Amino acid sequence: MSTRKIVTIYDIAERLKLAPSTISRGLQDNPAVNEKTRKRIMAAAAEMGYRFNTFASNLRKQRSNMIGVIVPRLNSYFISSMLAGIEKEINSAGYDMLISQSLELEANEIKYARAMLNNRVDGLIVNLAANTRNLDHFQEYSRHNLPLVFVDRVFEDDDFNKVMINNSRAGYDITRHLIEQGCRRIVHLTGSLMRNVYQERKAGYQRALAEFQIPYDEELVLETELTEDASAAAAEKILKMKNRPDALFVSNDMSAAICMKVFKDAGLHIPQDIAVAGFNNEIISRLSDPMITTINYPGEEMGRTAARQLINLIEHKSDNDLTKSIILKSQLVVRGSTLKKPTTNL
Amino acid sequence: MSTRKIVTIYDIAERLKLAPSTISRGLQDNPAVNEKTRKRIMAAAAEMGYRFNTFASNLRKQRSNMIGVIVPRLNSYFISSMLAGIEKEINSAGYDMLISQSLELEANEIKYARAMLNNRVDGLIVNLAANTRNLDHFQEYSRHNLPLVFVDRVFEDDDFNKVMINNSRAGYDITRHLIEQGCRRIVHLTGSLMRNVYQERKAGYQRALAEFQIPYDEELVLETELTEDASAAAAEKILKMKNRPDALFVSNDMSAAICMKVFKDAGLHIPQDIAVAGFNNEIISRLSDPMITTINYPGEEMGRTAARQLINLIEHKSDNDLTKSIILKSQLVVRGSTLKKPTTNL
Repeated sequence: MSTRKIVTIYDIAERLKLAPSTISRGLQDNPAVNEKTRKRIMAAAAEMGYRFNTFASNLRKQRSNMIGVIVPRLNSYFISSMLAGIEKEINSAGYDMLISQSLELEANEIKYARAMLNNRVDGLIVNLAANTRNLDHFQEYSRHNLPLVFVDRVFEDDDFNKVMINNSRAGYDITRHLIEQGCRRIVHLTGSLMRNVYQERKAGYQRALAEFQIPYDEELVLETELTEDASAAAAEKILKMKNRPDALFVSNDMSAAICMKVFKDAGLHIPQDIAVAGFNNEIISRLSDPMITTINYPGEEMGRTAARQLINLIEHKSDNDLTKSIILKSQLVVRGSTLKKPTTNL
Repeated sequence: MSTRKIVTIYDIAERLKLAPSTISRGLQDNPAVNEKTRKRIMAAAAEMGYRFNTFASNLRKQRSNMIGVIVPRLNSYFISSMLAGIEKEINSAGYDMLISQSLELEANEIKYARAMLNNRVDGLIVNLAANTRNLDHFQEYSRHNLPLVFVDRVFEDDDFNKVMINNSRAGYDITRHLIEQGCRRIVHLTGSLMRNVYQERKAGYQRALAEFQIPYDEELVLETELTEDASAAAAEKILKMKNRPDALFVSNDMSAAICMKVFKDAGLHIPQDIAVAGFNNEIISRLSDPMITTINYPGEEMGRTAARQLINLIEHKSDNDLTKSIILKSQLVVRGSTLKKPTTNL
């Protein structure tokens, strides 16, 4: 096994018969060193295999140029769009992204929040795990005055910076649309009600029902993990309900598409027998047959916005003491899966 | 704006009237310090807001405990499954993941490979961009004896470590299956033919045609970016071909589902009028109607394998001088979208 020989500025200085300080300045492209010499230094550094040490130089500056990101999981379309947005924004500002997935568990989130702090991230972006009970594990960031931005899944009433959409409004819009299509017995299939995004969508659903004087029936709210298996199981449960529901509002398009497939396989017609609405405007909502009514939910833009907000805080372009909540727009997108009265509404 | 006061071991030493060296050992949980004192030190550190400096301690050890990952893009199902696998493996081994997306451009890949080297990653995992011409930008890693593992999109004949599937075999299997279903005019819709994964699938397609003495027609191979728009455009092009093809083999399920939708919207029946096969075994292949014949492609397992290989190299549990190519299994999954003769084949 070959051993790693570390080339230092002293080695380069010796080779070129120059002072180490000149080499150091030359490597930083400092104009105090004339251009010809700078080029010679760079050429020698490249030839000798000198490794620029951003890591050490960042340490001296008390800056790692790394931004931590904690998400519930990596293999979800919404999360990966959000990450793509974060990455674009921070990379163009000269930061790198350190990333961990909590796998929906608070215990992992606590562990990673601490690991990232110890790794000297300059700031942190968090999308909360399904079962996180409080934000105590992020208080350390505030103590160190390290910027923190929550995105999408947040605690809405705390003092942290956050980027989100108006989930209650979105849940209201979609439920109202279903009611206007003549639906009265509307099932709501949701993720963990400990999370604002699902809580708020459900609140919007309840508000629309109340407005149209449709009694709220707790048995019509199904809380699951929204995985492939859990979604199919929920659809089977709906099929077996005595008084079959006439509509289903799911908090996620992929899950809505899975339910729709189960309904179709059982011989039901969509939307005539049961209308189905999703959430997120993922590609799957446009590929399903019929296409799925959904909420256009700007994942990439949410990521970019959170990253921009964080960078401004890190670089003191905005004030960390002024907490900001940024609410991005989302829109109801009406498609075939809910259109029982196509001509009156489009 | 409040200023960040950095608490040092000297502050803790002063508070507890102990030597700084004792504090240092206590914070490292060194048994040379008795347990009661260690607890006092930990309590004072927590109370005063001392921030453990993994970053600096790693610098002393010449180890960052960070693994770099460069992928073409973050918002793809296959890539995010792969990342989920990498992350699980490296996190349980005590590493963190630093991640960048090349956005399919070699220029970005070059930039990020250098940035990660300068950030002192302990090793790098790469899935190549669409237009990368050579691996010169990774030679620096070899010079520094830094482990490097390519995953999925690799240069198959070089001396780097790699994890992949047998794409040629997979392309052959799927094409042979289409021929056995009676298809003779088979379009192949592929991504950038600069990349091994697409080259090899195409080679398998050609090999199957040759074996069954079906002449190869270059006009039936469509090279695109496999985006939503490019896939729909390719499907439109197929619909307009004079002598309409009887099958389509697409290098990606999402793209296959998009084509199938265009065909169905044009009134064609799948698979009677045109059989459609995809690649990856994404959820979409199970949700489409009919379900899509595909290749089961173990993204998460590829990520885990690459990460394990890299960690073994970093920790000298395996020898970097013995280059390894790991080829994982993939399987043909036959479904309704290609079954013109269902009874004979299942």
